[in-house]
Amino acid sequence: MDHPKFVIEVSEAESMAKSSGFTLKQLLPNLVVSAQTLARVPISNFHVGAVGVGPSGRIFFGVNLEFPGLPLHHSVHAEQFLVTNLFINGETNLDCLAVSAAPCGHCRQFLQEIRGAPDVKILITSDEEQGFTPLSQFLSHRFGPHDLLPDDIPLLLEPRHNGLNFSGEINNSPTGICNNGYHPNEKLKYAALEAANKSHAPYSGSPSGVALIDSDGKIYKGSYIESAAYNPSMGPVQAALVSYVAGGGGDYQQVVGAVLVEKEGAVVKQEQTAKLLLQSISSQCQFKTFFCTS
Amino acid sequence: MDHPKFVIEVSEAESMAKSSGFTLKQLLPNLVVSAQTLARVPISNFHVGAVGVGPSGRIFFGVNLEFPGLPLHHSVHAEQFLVTNLFINGETNLDCLAVSAAPCGHCRQFLQEIRGAPDVKILITSDEEQGFTPLSQFLSHRFGPHDLLPDDIPLLLEPRHNGLNFSGEINNSPTGICNNGYHPNEKLKYAALEAANKSHAPYSGSPSGVALIDSDGKIYKGSYIESAAYNPSMGPVQAALVSYVAGGGGDYQQVVGAVLVEKEGAVVKQEQTAKLLLQSISSQCQFKTFFCTS
Ligand SMILES: [Zn+2]
Ligand SMILES: [Zn+2]
Repeated sequence: MDHPKFVIEVSEAESMAKSSGFTLKQLLPNLVVSAQTLARVPISNFHVGAVGVGPSGRIFFGVNLEFPGLPLHHSVHAEQFLVTNLFINGETNLDCLAVSAAPCGHCRQFLQEIRGAPDVKILITSDEEQGFTPLSQFLSHRFGPHDLLPDDIPLLLEPRHNGLNFSGEINNSPTGICNNGYHPNEKLKYAALEAANKSHAPYSGSPSGVALIDSDGKIYKGSYIESAAYNPSMGPVQAALVSYVAGGGGDYQQVVGAVLVEKEGAVVKQEQTAKLLLQSISSQCQFKTFFCTS
Repeated sequence: MDHPKFVIEVSEAESMAKSSGFTLKQLLPNLVVSAQTLARVPISNFHVGAVGVGPSGRIFFGVNLEFPGLPLHHSVHAEQFLVTNLFINGETNLDCLAVSAAPCGHCRQFLQEIRGAPDVKILITSDEEQGFTPLSQFLSHRFGPHDLLPDDIPLLLEPRHNGLNFSGEINNSPTGICNNGYHPNEKLKYAALEAANKSHAPYSGSPSGVALIDSDGKIYKGSYIESAAYNPSMGPVQAALVSYVAGGGGDYQQVVGAVLVEKEGAVVKQEQTAKLLLQSISSQCQFKTFFCTS
């Protein structure tokens, strides 16, 4: 059975536009309601959908995710999901997006990680007559990467490779928090390393990545994404869950294994928090951390 | 020895204004640099200071706090510290504030919890010629409490009592994560309950509070503060650490005991995350959770 689509390829997007007489941009608001139905929001029951288009002409969906039993900072907003979806699919920018409710400040800040963020056009479907409005008008006098980074550092959607390796013998987690006897397959470990190598963490220098495996043996990768304002950063488990949901993953309970790769001695450590979130979503998920060096 | 002041009482504020020929509002930008020196920022070394005045005529300081070894969402921003400082001291609103750097989106969102938020005037000292500008211009088309709550629900700085009690026999934490044999004194337990009763958690219905005790036996309380946008919510340990820093607490290592009170069966649970943060800041802190009912 087909799973709901979170990416609409160029050919399909163009034929949708053609048959409706709309431009790609005009299509977006009409797709927001179908995005909303895909939200996983057991706490608020407040379904948010965001639909955006990038320079490739592909259309991307984003929805909000909530995790009961933990503090609310674990939540993923629809706009963050959308941006992570762009990231996973190698889209290098975001032209415009339509969203079902006014973006919160946390999301307006997270969006700043994209080069040229002030020019991203946003339409709120609950206030449609206002039309597409640049992000600069939603977050004037912005704080962002330009306040902290040199111009030549890659921003969120730009290619990077953090040069991380498992040095010689793989360092198993020394903390003893991993499930005893869990030996994830090499593929899962190297998928998490690959995600860590793509991680956007220029502020703390603490890149990390997670790979999940479901009961069908399918692997989902997520890279830690940092915000210049720290708190809106997206954890690597959250990013991997975006891959899982966008990639057709079912109930989280089907996540049976997870590997976190983070940098030895890093100032930001994901391990304990990743473990909490994974335990809360899937009682059968085995989890292990590996450290890497650059 | 006097500790640095995070609240300037009305009489002192008035005499400062008188002797300088400034209004209270004009005083604020001149106090930002001294606030900045009080920041605790071992990760970024980016010192932010925020200084605000409330309707009482008292002046309040805020600084940023960072916690190495954990994900960045544990950070407290200067504007959040300032608002928590108002909350602790029973100030019912915020008229204006001066801050050393452009407020991030996360903070602009957190500030929405105050009634009349769009009218709070903000001056950024690094861009002083712009003067005091209403928050509505920093976060236009806002998402906030008005989108989710009836008008008569108390907002962040307004009085509330959540009606929480220890029901009959006190329920000790059933999770076994507390330090064995730690029996916090009754005063600490009831201080945490009092903080939980003041907690602003209208979105999840999961109020909580923390009380810390230092090696001198001094108690510091913090109430969990929720944001309509979920992620910018301030954890109860963070709120208690604002009390600690503002109340003259020294090195975090001097925090020797902590009690969390949260609601039995709540959808948002702070316990495990509170434990992680407390362990990371003080190796000698004993921690226990008690559950309450309403
Ligand atoms: Zn948001
Ligand atoms: Zn901030």
